[in-house]
Amino acid sequence: MGKGDETRQVVLGQALRTASTLGLRGLTIGALAEQTSMSKSGLFAHFKSKEQLQCAVIEYASERFVERVLRPALREPRGERRLRALFDRWLDWDGGADLALPGGCVFISASAELDDEADGVLRDRFVRNQRDWLDTLASVFRSGITEGHFDADSDSEQFAHDLYGVMLAYHHATRLLRDPHAEQRARVAFERLLSLARRPTPVPV
Amino acid sequence: MGKGDETRQVVLGQALRTASTLGLRGLTIGALAEQTSMSKSGLFAHFKSKEQLQCAVIEYASERFVERVLRPALREPRGERRLRALFDRWLDWDGGADLALPGGCVFISASAELDDEADGVLRDRFVRNQRDWLDTLASVFRSGITEGHFDADSDSEQFAHDLYGVMLAYHHATRLLRDPHAEQRARVAFERLLSLARRPTPVPV
Repeated sequence: MGKGDETRQVVLGQALRTASTLGLRGLTIGALAEQTSMSKSGLFAHFKSKEQLQCAVIEYASERFVERVLRPALREPRGERRLRALFDRWLDWDGGADLALPGGCVFISASAELDDEADGVLRDRFVRNQRDWLDTLASVFRSGITEGHFDADSDSEQFAHDLYGVMLAYHHATRLLRDPHAEQRARVAFERLLSLARRPTPVPV
Repeated sequence: MGKGDETRQVVLGQALRTASTLGLRGLTIGALAEQTSMSKSGLFAHFKSKEQLQCAVIEYASERFVERVLRPALREPRGERRLRALFDRWLDWDGGADLALPGGCVFISASAELDDEADGVLRDRFVRNQRDWLDTLASVFRSGITEGHFDADSDSEQFAHDLYGVMLAYHHATRLLRDPHAEQRARVAFERLLSLARRPTPVPV
C-alpha cells in the first residue's frame, strides 16, 4: 500500500466514525481536515465535493463490512453453517477493536437519512449497496437449499428481508432502548427463521 | 377546543411534518414561525426552547398514533382480531389524508437520530414512548393468550420485539428501496409470527 493509499484509509476511517454518529449529512471536509490534521485544500483536491466524500465513505464501509462479515463467513461450508457465521459476525460488526463505530451501524443510520432524499448519486449508490447485501443474504440462504438444509419451497428473498428486520430490531433494542436482552431476542428470532425454513411455508390468510 | 388549542394543533401538525422529513434536529422555531406565519417570539413564549418543541412533537405524534392505530384496534374483540387490526393500521399510519407525513414514520427517524444521544429530556421522553408501545404490543398479544388463540408458553415480549422488526424491515423496504413487494413481505412475516405463536416455541440451539 503506497503512502497515498494509507492516508486515504486513515481519512476514510475517521470519516466513517464521524458518519456513524452524526450521519452522512454531518460529514464536512472542514471538520474532517481538523480531525485528521490534513489541509482542507488537500482533502478538497482528493474528494472534489462533499457528495463524493459521502460516496467514498459508503464504499469504504462496504469494504470493511465484506472484510469483517462476508469473507470470513464464506470460508464456512455452504448452507446453514455459513448463514450462522454470517449472522454472528453481522451482530457485532460495528464493534471490535479495529473498527469501533461510536454511533453503531452506519448503514442503518444512512438508511434513515437517505430514504426521503430525491434520487441522486449518493442515494443510488447506497440503495445499490443495500440491494447487493439483500441479494447476498438470499444467495447464502439458497446455498442451504441446494445443500438440503432448507425446504426447497422457501422464499429466499423473503428470508433476506426478514433477516434484515431481525437486525433492525436488534439495533433498535440495543442502541436506543439499551435492552439487555437485545442479543438474546435477535438470536431467538434468527432460530425461528431457520426453523421455519425447514418447514413448508405457511400460506397467508 | 379553544383558539389557543387550535393554534397549538396547527403548529404541532406542521412541526410533525417537518420532523418526518428533516428529523427532530431539523426543527427550528425560526423555520416553524415562517411555515405557520406565526411570530417567532410568540412561538418562543409558547415552547420556551427547541428541546421543549421537540418533546411536544413526540407527544403530539404519540397522540395521533393512539388515535389512528391503537384506539380503533381496541374496539375489535380481544386477541387475534385486535392484533390484526392493530397491524393493518400501523402499516399505513403515516399515510392518509388527515396526516400525511412526507418523510414517513417519525418514530423510526427519531430512533435513528436519538440512539447515539446522551441521556436527556428528549431521549428519555422518546425511549419511554417506544417502551410504552412495545408494552402495548405485548399486552394485545397476551389478550390472545387469555382468549386461547395463542400458545400459553409464548413469550409476549419477544413477540412485540419481533413485530417491531417486521415494521422496521417494511419501512426500509418501502421507503429506502421502494420495493413494490414491501407490504406483501410484511404481511407474510406477520402471518409467520402468528403461526409460530400457535405452536410451542422452538428452543435456540
